[in-house]
Amino acid sequence: MEFESKIRTIQWVNNVSRMVDQTKFPEEYIYVDIKTGDEMYDAIKTMIVRGAPAIGIAGAHGVVLYAQEGKEKWGNISVEEFKTKLLEKCDYLASSRPTAVNLMWAVEQQKKLIKETHSDINTLIEDLTKQAIRMENEDIEINKAIGRYGAEVVPKGATILTHCNAGALATVGYGTALGVVRSAFANDNTIQVFADETRPRQQGARITTLELTMDGIPTTLITDGMCSYFMSKGMIDMVVVGADRIAANGDTANKIGTYTVAIAAKYHNIPFYIAAPLSTIDTSIQTGAEIPIEERDHKEVTHINGKTICAEGVNIINPGFDVTPHELISGIITEVGILRPDYNKSIKEAFEKQNAVLV
Amino acid sequence: MEFESKIRTIQWVNNVSRMVDQTKFPEEYIYVDIKTGDEMYDAIKTMIVRGAPAIGIAGAHGVVLYAQEGKEKWGNISVEEFKTKLLEKCDYLASSRPTAVNLMWAVEQQKKLIKETHSDINTLIEDLTKQAIRMENEDIEINKAIGRYGAEVVPKGATILTHCNAGALATVGYGTALGVVRSAFANDNTIQVFADETRPRQQGARITTLELTMDGIPTTLITDGMCSYFMSKGMIDMVVVGADRIAANGDTANKIGTYTVAIAAKYHNIPFYIAAPLSTIDTSIQTGAEIPIEERDHKEVTHINGKTICAEGVNIINPGFDVTPHELISGIITEVGILRPDYNKSIKEAFEKQNAVLV
Repeated sequence: MEFESKIRTIQWVNNVSRMVDQTKFPEEYIYVDIKTGDEMYDAIKTMIVRGAPAIGIAGAHGVVLYAQEGKEKWGNISVEEFKTKLLEKCDYLASSRPTAVNLMWAVEQQKKLIKETHSDINTLIEDLTKQAIRMENEDIEINKAIGRYGAEVVPKGATILTHCNAGALATVGYGTALGVVRSAFANDNTIQVFADETRPRQQGARITTLELTMDGIPTTLITDGMCSYFMSKGMIDMVVVGADRIAANGDTANKIGTYTVAIAAKYHNIPFYIAAPLSTIDTSIQTGAEIPIEERDHKEVTHINGKTICAEGVNIINPGFDVTPHELISGIITEVGILRPDYNKSIKEAFEKQNAVLV
Repeated sequence: MEFESKIRTIQWVNNVSRMVDQTKFPEEYIYVDIKTGDEMYDAIKTMIVRGAPAIGIAGAHGVVLYAQEGKEKWGNISVEEFKTKLLEKCDYLASSRPTAVNLMWAVEQQKKLIKETHSDINTLIEDLTKQAIRMENEDIEINKAIGRYGAEVVPKGATILTHCNAGALATVGYGTALGVVRSAFANDNTIQVFADETRPRQQGARITTLELTMDGIPTTLITDGMCSYFMSKGMIDMVVVGADRIAANGDTANKIGTYTVAIAAKYHNIPFYIAAPLSTIDTSIQTGAEIPIEERDHKEVTHINGKTICAEGVNIINPGFDVTPHELISGIITEVGILRPDYNKSIKEAFEKQNAVLV
């Protein structure tokens, strides 16, 4: 049985990018239409749209928006001049968030298309739009494949701990880690989720609890420090989280706090899985040490709901991500199957398998 | 060199109990004078004063306040009639926070004194006042002894991670875990502290950052999930936390999240210490499994600053404490020295040492 989620995070509609505004959670669930490339840059930066796969699609949409605007604003220029200007906009857009590789990957797909031959600007815009829509649909299909593979390793009646939000709201509409949950739940509604709050931005509390309760999946919210307590009580059967970037050796960058959960899982002999599309794997880097870690606004730590929670004069360091070393990861659930250690080998094989399918 | 803290959490001054109002943190640091026994009952219940050792002293003060009022209000009665009424008030006061063992212990000390022979009511009140002041001073002396022993294992220039608040503001004015920090800092001002926020009640953010910055000790606030990240970067040299109850085998109950930090410390081979007076050790229980874990208000998890942070319909479990197993604890820093594994043996010896001193 296939699970149908009520959520559609981002969609190309009437030449604009329509997305759920994730800064309004949990009070409001509203859509905004992003109409220009610069608006998209800001939407990614301010996390109106967030989640590695979703911001990839947002990037693809953003390129189309810049192209549409360019046609209006850049006057009567040649296709080649148009492309040069558009490629600059692509690079600017890709710089809006540094850690998630999906954004760079999606913008790169659009850049490749721009560099192909086009008779006129309208045809180029049409092609970019088609590719963006294709990437949207593929994202859902890839998530569902991840879900199917992942569901195979979810024990009957399992309680699954997750961190941050790698759900429908981090993707186009199904989820990676929560795609595994949805696929498992479709055939076993005794499955339940424990969601880490995920300070500082509380995506687990604000987003994961929202999307799971919307889809009728039982969810317990816990604070980040509690995970080991519940593990020690035998109340957690497995951990599944998403990823922002995976190195060739399997080291995985994900939301800050993931690494702590992975260590706790190892201590309690609980399987710890990453769920992510192959596009999250960056084989150009060998280990997690090479993944850039975004340093975010200190107010994310010092303020909640607009009020300060600490003394003045305190120092803050706010890394947005951490890297879980491959030795703590039981498997990486992808759209071509579950990759197991040795990851250098299994990741290489997965890409070969994917290329074989594409040929 | 001895460190002099600017903080005096609670003090008997001009026949009233003067305390820092801890419900106003971090916006305000103000003192309130508690002038009646009933006011003290409310101050403990509403957590104007918190921290097990501090509420013990509050209890001792409260008994004096009831006695002072009784002298005015109860009319011309005999010493024995006065004592009967006062003992009833003692029991009422001790019920303000039923889980805090220090409160019962401190009120019990006053009750014992009341049951001794007194020629008149004035002498009784004088004796109760003297005992309350003695208990205040002893609390500071015990903390300073813990600090001196603990400082011996703090490396030069160390960064010390702590969880929750086991500081001056949890005691009369020096602290247990933060007493170790103060003693180390007195002789090496390159020491610094990383303070876990400590969700759900954020004592690390609201209280620990406040008291350390007041005392000029450099402090970095981090969210609970970040500890492993900084440990992996070599930025944490040791962990020191307080305790709510320690079993005969060294298993230690402390604020929820402590156990997660202990596992992360073990994974990174970073020393993990408990700092607590011997009165926190409960040799009547053999292991941590016997320590009852208080389940607290669910709103502590779902609300911050009065606003909800999660979806409606989500489940909550809110254990106030967790138990760190003795095998993760490098040492227990007490007023008679640092206890090391095997704790069954070292704890027994510590009590023998203490009794020898008392004799």
